Amino acid sequence: MQWVKVLGGLVGASALLGLGIILGRFAIPKGADAPAPGVSVSQDLDLEILETVMKQLDASKIRENLRELSREPHLASSPRDEALAQLLLHRWRDPESGLDAAEAPTYEVLLSFPSRERPNRVAVVGPTGTILFSCRQSEQNLTGEQGGPDVVPPYAAYAPPGTPQAVNAAKHGVAGVLVYTDPADINDGHSSASQTFPNSWRLPPSGVERGSYYEYFGDPLTPYLPANPSSFRLNPDTVPGFPPIPTQPIGFEDAKILLCNLQGTLAPAAWQGALGCDYKLGPGFRPDGDFLADSQVNVSVHNRLELRNSSNVLGIIRGAVEPDRYVLYGNHRDSWVHGAVDPSSGTAVLLELSRVLGTLLKKGTWRPRRSIVFASWGAEEFGLIGSTEFTEEFFSKLQERTVAYINVDISVFANATLRAQGTPPVQSVIFSAAKQIPAPGLDGLSIYDNWIRYFNRSSTAYGLVPSLGSLGAGSDYAPFIHFLGISSMDIAYTYDRSKTSARIYPTYHTAFDTFGYVDKFVDPGFSSHQAVARTAGSVLLRLSDSLFLPLNVSDYGETLRNFLQAAQRDLGVLLEQHSISLGPLVTAVEKFEGAAAALGQHVSALQKDTPDPLQVRMLNDQLMLLERTFLNPRAFPEERYYSHVLWAPRTGSVATFPGLANACSRAMNTSLGSAAWAEVQRQLSILVVALEGAAATLRPVADL
Amino acid sequence: MQWVKVLGGLVGASALLGLGIILGRFAIPKGADAPAPGVSVSQDLDLEILETVMKQLDASKIRENLRELSREPHLASSPRDEALAQLLLHRWRDPESGLDAAEAPTYEVLLSFPSRERPNRVAVVGPTGTILFSCRQSEQNLTGEQGGPDVVPPYAAYAPPGTPQAVNAAKHGVAGVLVYTDPADINDGHSSASQTFPNSWRLPPSGVERGSYYEYFGDPLTPYLPANPSSFRLNPDTVPGFPPIPTQPIGFEDAKILLCNLQGTLAPAAWQGALGCDYKLGPGFRPDGDFLADSQVNVSVHNRLELRNSSNVLGIIRGAVEPDRYVLYGNHRDSWVHGAVDPSSGTAVLLELSRVLGTLLKKGTWRPRRSIVFASWGAEEFGLIGSTEFTEEFFSKLQERTVAYINVDISVFANATLRAQGTPPVQSVIFSAAKQIPAPGLDGLSIYDNWIRYFNRSSTAYGLVPSLGSLGAGSDYAPFIHFLGISSMDIAYTYDRSKTSARIYPTYHTAFDTFGYVDKFVDPGFSSHQAVARTAGSVLLRLSDSLFLPLNVSDYGETLRNFLQAAQRDLGVLLEQHSISLGPLVTAVEKFEGAAAALGQHVSALQKDTPDPLQVRMLNDQLMLLERTFLNPRAFPEERYYSHVLWAPRTGSVATFPGLANACSRAMNTSLGSAAWAEVQRQLSILVVALEGAAATLRPVADL
Repeated sequence: MQWVKVLGGLVGASALLGLGIILGRFAIPKGADAPAPGVSVSQDLDLEILETVMKQLDASKIRENLRELSREPHLASSPRDEALAQLLLHRWRDPESGLDAAEAPTYEVLLSFPSRERPNRVAVVGPTGTILFSCRQSEQNLTGEQGGPDVVPPYAAYAPPGTPQAVNAAKHGVAGVLVYTDPADINDGHSSASQTFPNSWRLPPSGVERGSYYEYFGDPLTPYLPANPSSFRLNPDTVPGFPPIPTQPIGFEDAKILLCNLQGTLAPAAWQGALGCDYKLGPGFRPDGDFLADSQVNVSVHNRLELRNSSNVLGIIRGAVEPDRYVLYGNHRDSWVHGAVDPSSGTAVLLELSRVLGTLLKKGTWRPRRSIVFASWGAEEFGLIGSTEFTEEFFSKLQERTVAYINVDISVFANATLRAQGTPPVQSVIFSAAKQIPAPGLDGLSIYDNWIRYFNRSSTAYGLVPSLGSLGAGSDYAPFIHFLGISSMDIAYTYDRSKTSARIYPTYHTAFDTFGYVDKFVDPGFSSHQAVARTAGSVLLRLSDSLFLPLNVSDYGETLRNFLQAAQRDLGVLLEQHSISLGPLVTAVEKFEGAAAALGQHVSALQKDTPDPLQVRMLNDQLMLLERTFLNPRAFPEERYYSHVLWAPRTGSVATFPGLANACSRAMNTSLGSAAWAEVQRQLSILVVALEGAAATLRPVADL
Repeated sequence: MQWVKVLGGLVGASALLGLGIILGRFAIPKGADAPAPGVSVSQDLDLEILETVMKQLDASKIRENLRELSREPHLASSPRDEALAQLLLHRWRDPESGLDAAEAPTYEVLLSFPSRERPNRVAVVGPTGTILFSCRQSEQNLTGEQGGPDVVPPYAAYAPPGTPQAVNAAKHGVAGVLVYTDPADINDGHSSASQTFPNSWRLPPSGVERGSYYEYFGDPLTPYLPANPSSFRLNPDTVPGFPPIPTQPIGFEDAKILLCNLQGTLAPAAWQGALGCDYKLGPGFRPDGDFLADSQVNVSVHNRLELRNSSNVLGIIRGAVEPDRYVLYGNHRDSWVHGAVDPSSGTAVLLELSRVLGTLLKKGTWRPRRSIVFASWGAEEFGLIGSTEFTEEFFSKLQERTVAYINVDISVFANATLRAQGTPPVQSVIFSAAKQIPAPGLDGLSIYDNWIRYFNRSSTAYGLVPSLGSLGAGSDYAPFIHFLGISSMDIAYTYDRSKTSARIYPTYHTAFDTFGYVDKFVDPGFSSHQAVARTAGSVLLRLSDSLFLPLNVSDYGETLRNFLQAAQRDLGVLLEQHSISLGPLVTAVEKFEGAAAALGQHVSALQKDTPDPLQVRMLNDQLMLLERTFLNPRAFPEERYYSHVLWAPRTGSVATFPGLANACSRAMNTSLGSAAWAEVQRQLSILVVALEGAAATLRPVADL
């Protein structure tokens, strides 16, 4: 029996040795592998954490946030705006639900305000100087919230002071501009008190849309430089981009009085609205109307430019593994009046999302793989100022390290469906998030399933999918995508555009955008606010936590292909007439598609194994930096900030690459060989080089 | 005794278990850690490999390379230039000593050549049209190598055709320009045949310096775009940057005839040279000289612009661990005539270095941590064309991934000492390399020890150190540092400037720059060539193989501090008079120094432990990308390519930040509040923002 004992001993010894090897192999974190005790370089998205976050985002907390945020008007740089900045700072520094760190840096920016002593005025004045009619100088106090000294009267920010008088533009030019929103465009034609707020969602007759009339974005005095106290500033008297003549917005009930009293030719059909009369072009008032012959409209604008301090608030959760990779989530804080929808519906979501994540952080339950930066922007309403100054100040750092920018400005326009805008690489992560979240109020449907019913397109790659809009300059994503070349998105819930033709939610930028308005008409129950918090939160976590960045570069191929086809179809003949071939563009698009497809396969191959973190890092760099390759600061020298060759503003009518569309549009009626046609060729080359350069970054990294 | 047995069993079991744990911990490469069998993510510089490379770089092989490379003239785009491109391609594809892959991409670029049918001519013509004197149309055939159809006659590339005639510039402007090199500037005054080549190092009397007279760099027709066949091209007739009037270079023996026959006022003292007469200003020839009164100088230039194919040759050794990090090493291949010194002395070194590394690679002995890219540039002599087109084509890829660019154009001007130019981050790695290599011909001295005797400066941080020159646009590093913002350097051996006042080695750009010239006068024995190969090779390996990138960002602080002090000292009063404070600049420099110092400590801390490769990667990204933060394409809109706020060309006299120096220089005599003074403020802000932005990237990556 000795051999049994020996055998037994050997087996036992082997088992011990084997156990030891296994323990050594797996159980002891190498100094090299473990960035911190308990953290693995291979840390990936934890679906349980994601589920927890989804569950904890609370509609009623969002509602309470909104109540507080919109309790008082908080115009950019006002005391209440500053107080809200402190509120955010305080919450982000909370020991139990705050972030790792938070700051509130301030910029000194040029804003514009009406004069308290001399309010803007629009009046009809008779031949002897009698005031026959005055437009309202403030909106009607329908809910008790439209009065008070902090409700800024309606005005056109940055419109210059002046007192023009006339009835219409003389042959020598327009003297002043009055702006109003027609009930046809905003209220489906309705205009009576009983059919408008506070009795419905619609814009009441005294409601006026405020806004910024500055042509560019960013602080007007410091283009390309952060608005710090010592920065070089342009001369305010000669700043480009301000309206040249006095401008004032009025409500449609006042517009009706002016417009319906005009005489003259009938205005074109497309100009007719729902004020209840035929719109005429003037000049002059009809003698059978409310005003005497030779009455004039006097416009007195006394707006003032003022240097004011505007704060951003920034908070960070440091990444556990790749702290030098940032996922940015931003919302602006400043409003025109109460700003319940715009922007506090978004700020309320931001606060709830950061609370839930901060709580998990402070408990030690979770830390993201990459860093998360929350941003509350100031002075957005005046021209995306806080966000733009931030990108100017931290240009290099942000460009080198930012994975994506998530913007949630208004979170809920209305409660019918999700809507998203963004660049192609972020499409898939938004889809993934939306598929996993139930649509509010629609049993069994996901947000995705509901979304696709409202906004869809036919994708050559995927069949029917929800359609993402493109990013213009409507909110704070603009400097990130156009100036820095960072993949960006904007997420919100919105209304059913088959049920109303409203251009936007009707109380937009008026004193009627209040908590009561949201609570009663926009999202009672706040389940859509919660849906947006969940969607944006899920996208955020997928970007911050996934080992492999959920940025899909192949999806850019579809955009390029669509632009190319439009160019071939609508510009091909014209270009040929000028001996300009689209051949190199076709080649460039094909190269891009090929390189993106090959990279996609490389990703799949890597994902099958235990991936080497350095290899994943190198791949993720390729994905993150793709958007940058479309940036060319020399492409559009006449533009301010716009440098992205795919998303710069398109003035030409063909839905294709903007540089090409715009240059063709300008060259259209010029002769063969003109400078304008040379510019078409130059724009085409810029585009080809950008696409070829993008493809080169997607190829295997050590390919020549 | 049972307890003894039990104890023994326990001890034995523990030992087995322990052994197993140790084996598991250290002996089994994790899939996650091992990018390839035998390769570790912590792979660092192997000093034995370095030593091997130093030993294997062979002076006689460099000599044989040079003999072959300079055997025939190889003007850009000529058949011999193409043949040499093939030679490089062939060597880099050699199965035993080649690289992983090599390519020879071609660009279609605008070059300039004299006409074969109508050679350029400079003659003195008498009043009746008789030719009284003709300058030489080619250099004297002193060694049998200056004749032949492939020796391009002396000319000024890009000078326009024309046949001006005059004796001097009339009040209506200069009609033509003749250029020559004075023996005072190149030969320490010597000019006789016995004292010049082939009897010495010096320029012979018929020698003519060719060169490009184009004001910018890069292919003239395709600024900012690679010169591919389909790229947009400017109209050659209106291309900016060409000389406006016919220009022709001549030798000093011909110049003597013309110059010493002039009459008129004595030229200023600083203009006098060593032709053996008093230089006069004219107009007209002196009646007692060689020419009749009313003789004229006729200049006939028949240069032609031609579109030609010029190749770059690229070869790559893929990095074992971080293949997406590139160390670039470049040298141009094209010459004016034989180009033995310029550039083949560098090409010869390039070939030997790539041979040694390729041999180690093919044997399986070594693979670098990061990728090494060797580049042979075309058409450098015409304006850094091949390298610039390359940077335009691969802008994004290069900017995102290139650790540094090493340029070795001419490797040996003469054999006295090393000389290096570069940006501060590369100073330390050049020093490290130089300290470890023996200086040729100086027993016991290192290259560093010898170098410091010729070029030194007093560093506040280090005491006496060799001084690095700054990078202008003299060679192919220009697009890398100025357009892409990549830390760059240029390395060569040169002469003792206390022993000669020669502006450059005397046969520069002449037909006398031959193998015989190098072999006899420049570097007999080729030990200086070997020294440069070793220095550049050592720098290359340290950059490609070191775990921690040997880029020292703190060393930039000294440059900033010196520039700041010059600005304070020489511009401070002037700026104050215009209410411009340097305070923000002082703060920015201090912030930079602080952030760089803290990062340096972080590096030291990391280096003490077994570092986590991801942490090292994140740190290395900070080091690599620092140079990028100084780039601002909107800083100097009137410049072509120059975007680096520290190294753009300085026209102002104060040795400080170029934007500030130049703007002050232009504003100097303008009034308070002028646009020129506003530009001074703008340049100051641009600078402050760049420095603050740079500091921000050096701070801990997850600091707000």
